[in-house]
Amino acid sequence: MTPEALTQYLHSTIPLARAMAVSAVSASASNVTLKAPLPPNSNMHGTLFGGSGATLCLLAAWSAAHLRLEQDGFEAELVIHTSQIEYTAPAETDVTALSAIDDGQWMRTAAMLSKRGRGRITVSAQLYAGDTLAARFVGEFVATRYDRLRKAQ
Amino acid sequence: MTPEALTQYLHSTIPLARAMAVSAVSASASNVTLKAPLPPNSNMHGTLFGGSGATLCLLAAWSAAHLRLEQDGFEAELVIHTSQIEYTAPAETDVTALSAIDDGQWMRTAAMLSKRGRGRITVSAQLYAGDTLAARFVGEFVATRYDRLRKAQ
Repeated sequence: MTPEALTQYLHSTIPLARAMAVSAVSASASNVTLKAPLPPNSNMHGTLFGGSGATLCLLAAWSAAHLRLEQDGFEAELVIHTSQIEYTAPAETDVTALSAIDDGQWMRTAAMLSKRGRGRITVSAQLYAGDTLAARFVGEFVATRYDRLRKAQ
Repeated sequence: MTPEALTQYLHSTIPLARAMAVSAVSASASNVTLKAPLPPNSNMHGTLFGGSGATLCLLAAWSAAHLRLEQDGFEAELVIHTSQIEYTAPAETDVTALSAIDDGQWMRTAAMLSKRGRGRITVSAQLYAGDTLAARFVGEFVATRYDRLRKAQ
């Protein structure tokens, strides 16, 4: 998937991604980088709103896991189960969220998906404003193969 | 502050709150309830986007602490430091986030604010879709008195 196609996919399926003016800078089955401009994501202090920072990280982490599922031929629903974020510095400019899939983790997730139709994966993301680390995010996702979902319904 | 005034304040200072069509149902120095419609906050599954759920909880928790600061006469900046959220069920309708200030916790925060100009407070919020608990949120905020902020600059 090209960065343009990922941007288009997020905008067409998640209205909030469009409202935040999120765009993909890079998109592969190993890592995803998303960016967002400050103006639609600001708060009363003129800095980045925490909700926007957390959402950009979530979108980057979700996209990275989604692209890996796709590359490995899994047709699966991917949903967030838990997440944590620590804000380390206020962001006063446009922001970028970087997320990478850990290969060791992924192998366990893929094995569970193959065997049981369902697997968990923990994906981290880092939020930067220029060179400044603005936040650290960790999300735990659950992937469920569609053939398993249909069986459960 | 009336619910209408809180809605207006959030819309005018946080563009994302306006994009999510957040509105306050109740607003007092003890607890805040915010709601948001599904359409601008949906995902590719037609259910609530996790980023919207987390953001609505953050706004409810921030607002509850902000109103308590105001009631107690503190002129202070209030920023999020860390947060965690657990999604317990998919939300298929409009959602409501409820947040209440714990009085015991607040007394410690107020004492630190009076003494040192800065205090932390942990505020939880629950997200409901009808009667279904959709998520549990916990945020840790830092309040800093403006007179202390000015001295530090």
